[in-house]
Amino acid sequence: MKEIYHCFWVKAPPEDVYRAVVDKSGLSGWWTRSLEVNGKAGSVSTFRFKSGAFNRMKVRSLKPGKVEWECVDGHEEWIGTHITFDFRRDGNRTKVCFSHYGFKNQSEYVGECSFHWANYLVSLQEYCETGQGKPDQGK
Amino acid sequence: MKEIYHCFWVKAPPEDVYRAVVDKSGLSGWWTRSLEVNGKAGSVSTFRFKSGAFNRMKVRSLKPGKVEWECVDGHEEWIGTHITFDFRRDGNRTKVCFSHYGFKNQSEYVGECSFHWANYLVSLQEYCETGQGKPDQGK
Repeated sequence: MKEIYHCFWVKAPPEDVYRAVVDKSGLSGWWTRSLEVNGKAGSVSTFRFKSGAFNRMKVRSLKPGKVEWECVDGHEEWIGTHITFDFRRDGNRTKVCFSHYGFKNQSEYVGECSFHWANYLVSLQEYCETGQGKPDQGK
Repeated sequence: MKEIYHCFWVKAPPEDVYRAVVDKSGLSGWWTRSLEVNGKAGSVSTFRFKSGAFNRMKVRSLKPGKVEWECVDGHEEWIGTHITFDFRRDGNRTKVCFSHYGFKNQSEYVGECSFHWANYLVSLQEYCETGQGKPDQGK
């Protein structure tokens, strides 16, 4: 598998989920407390984790229904990969599809990332629904 | 994406994780409370969920390091797909790689299954580590 793909629903409007993956305060509420984000298209955000891992994401696209990042630094298997969040209103919920693609190798490492992403996406879901996610404490 | 692939570690010996995906008592502790399982190779297990969903899994392979099922009934996109659990001792933990493959179509439905599986695998992890998972209550 060279692509990670998770879809789920959030009991919140698409605008709230969008802000949670674009704004610094949102991202620090569910992904990591240690981050540099200016929230503009073309900018590069930095995310640091307690384990010592970090990544730098170039914001490739910011549209109400879609956010796209390209990883420009971090774990060597991440560099050059793309991450997209798609949002769609579905009744009084938002359907979110998350994709992380462009891995060069099919490996257990990608399987680990898939599992970790799902856990962070549960955190995103909880953050949007209750205001309380479970972000990494950062470094 | 036509394959779901998650890897993670469990702080328990491989034998414990193996039993949790083979024995009826194990499966009812993390996947669903409503199940018919005899735990033998070649047998067909049935799993029912609160939502009304169900599936029937033929046990294709039972080895200490690998369990394989083939879905023989249930959601039409699941029929004919295969599920494998691979276990490997890694120090005092077990590395588990889970795969669900053979989907005919790349769809949001597979993305939903990927997200749901990750949640159940967290439940498997908690069940093996603490004796307490979060299984579906079944039907």
